[in-house]
Amino acid sequence: MTNAGKADELLYMGIDGGGSKCRAVIVSSDLQILGKGVSGPANPLRGMDVATHSVLDATTQALYQAGLTEQDRSRLIVGAGLAGVNVPEYFQMFSAWQHPFKQFYLTHDLHIACIGAHQGQDGAVIICGTGSCGLAIVGSQQIAVGGHGFPYGDNGSGAWFGMQILHHVLLAQDKLGPQTLLTNLLLNASETDSTSALVTHFMHATPTLYARYAVLAFDAASAGDAVAKRIVQQGAGYIGDIARRLLTLEPPRLSLMGGLSGKLLPYLPSDIQGRITPVLQSPELGAIRFARESQKNETTQRISTV
Amino acid sequence: MTNAGKADELLYMGIDGGGSKCRAVIVSSDLQILGKGVSGPANPLRGMDVATHSVLDATTQALYQAGLTEQDRSRLIVGAGLAGVNVPEYFQMFSAWQHPFKQFYLTHDLHIACIGAHQGQDGAVIICGTGSCGLAIVGSQQIAVGGHGFPYGDNGSGAWFGMQILHHVLLAQDKLGPQTLLTNLLLNASETDSTSALVTHFMHATPTLYARYAVLAFDAASAGDAVAKRIVQQGAGYIGDIARRLLTLEPPRLSLMGGLSGKLLPYLPSDIQGRITPVLQSPELGAIRFARESQKNETTQRISTV
Repeated sequence: MTNAGKADELLYMGIDGGGSKCRAVIVSSDLQILGKGVSGPANPLRGMDVATHSVLDATTQALYQAGLTEQDRSRLIVGAGLAGVNVPEYFQMFSAWQHPFKQFYLTHDLHIACIGAHQGQDGAVIICGTGSCGLAIVGSQQIAVGGHGFPYGDNGSGAWFGMQILHHVLLAQDKLGPQTLLTNLLLNASETDSTSALVTHFMHATPTLYARYAVLAFDAASAGDAVAKRIVQQGAGYIGDIARRLLTLEPPRLSLMGGLSGKLLPYLPSDIQGRITPVLQSPELGAIRFARESQKNETTQRISTV
Repeated sequence: MTNAGKADELLYMGIDGGGSKCRAVIVSSDLQILGKGVSGPANPLRGMDVATHSVLDATTQALYQAGLTEQDRSRLIVGAGLAGVNVPEYFQMFSAWQHPFKQFYLTHDLHIACIGAHQGQDGAVIICGTGSCGLAIVGSQQIAVGGHGFPYGDNGSGAWFGMQILHHVLLAQDKLGPQTLLTNLLLNASETDSTSALVTHFMHATPTLYARYAVLAFDAASAGDAVAKRIVQQGAGYIGDIARRLLTLEPPRLSLMGGLSGKLLPYLPSDIQGRITPVLQSPELGAIRFARESQKNETTQRISTV
């Protein structure tokens, strides 16, 4: 019988809730992974119903994989890092959630990514996926940058790259900018055959839709396209600026995460490239570390107030 | 008794339907203005129901002002220039509308603006309001640029300026860009007191909301703010590029229209400024000219096919 089977045994769950996916992992008190789950968006910006549904959906899958049942939800000590709860309004909204868990410790997704990447030690992370943002934690000091949203922010992110590609394709079409390989690449990838079909395709597009085409900028840049090279340099410049800002706190480590990180790395300034260190643990395990740490602090507080 | 009162007298109506307002004007057969109306958005991108409702609403007001009734709709020979119908899909959708008029001639808003601005003669127009676009008509040749939508297009438009302001305010806040007067100007104008409140204010913002703050860039630039100056120069650069492209067709006249045109003019390259000529007639009157011209061509076609 596993630890999970004993009804009095502590169980931890880590949740990494992003704008498109929610990942859950359940571990035993000795940190053995028992089960995992993946569901849809868990960003409260998309609505509390959607977000809580995604959290519960991923939980059910992880419980099932761990050989547990829905009843065991009440045994889980949960650490959750959710996109969007850096906005105080959404943090409060989610804090008020009548969750079915034993404990529920809430923070933003960037925080658990940083804890995971450096196994709870000092360090900095930059996430470059659909959006872009960065966080450095050194002792009691923190610097958080970016993550404000799209289209005015999330510079150098997947969504930003997709929008820049469309921007330059339309400039070329109107003969207001140089011709570019991106035109045919974007028409093919979006399965459209004209500018007007392209515009219809991107009308009311979500950041996720734009981000789907980000990779085309790197493809065209590799093929020598001047417009794509400038886009990639500008995007990498934004991510480089985030790195420099985080490094002012002198973190011992700096990790680059998210779907575009592999593509971006070779384009970062070489001094920044040399500072990048591998991610040690996933954000979900970072979330579990956050839950355990929060629990310990509560105990300490309780002792110190006795 | 006015001409409008005689039930057999011809009546023309011009419609200028934009993304936020729809203007109608009714004239007699001798082109005397009889009545006007203004309603909401008439861009089919917002939905056919909204657009047709706006057209009918503005019509009712104009009829009422002309001392006519709802019954007189069937007497109107209508020219309508609507934003969005440059997209073939929307043109077809609106063409299939079961309108209540005697005749309904449809084109895009930029077209009637150009006809009006130059009283039907050759010329070019640039509209810079919430969006941006340009059109040159010389003989049977045309060049149309921009107007593809926001945020990937509509460069140098009100929406573009608003987004750039927010972009640079957030960069400054994150210490990723220089401090700027725009921060306080934007916080005051949007009645917010923090970056997170600002981001909440602009979450899911429409182009119209962004455009509301465009003027702040010009205010800050006048006050010597370096960031605002760069934004204004970049925006004016886009509009200047549109002008140069249109001038390749050698139009005898070039007019600048839309809410931002007065602010932008002093920042355009001096050779472009020197080419700007005043608007001779409103887009609504351009729409009437378009209707009459379309009617004449039909007659000509009928005669030539006899």
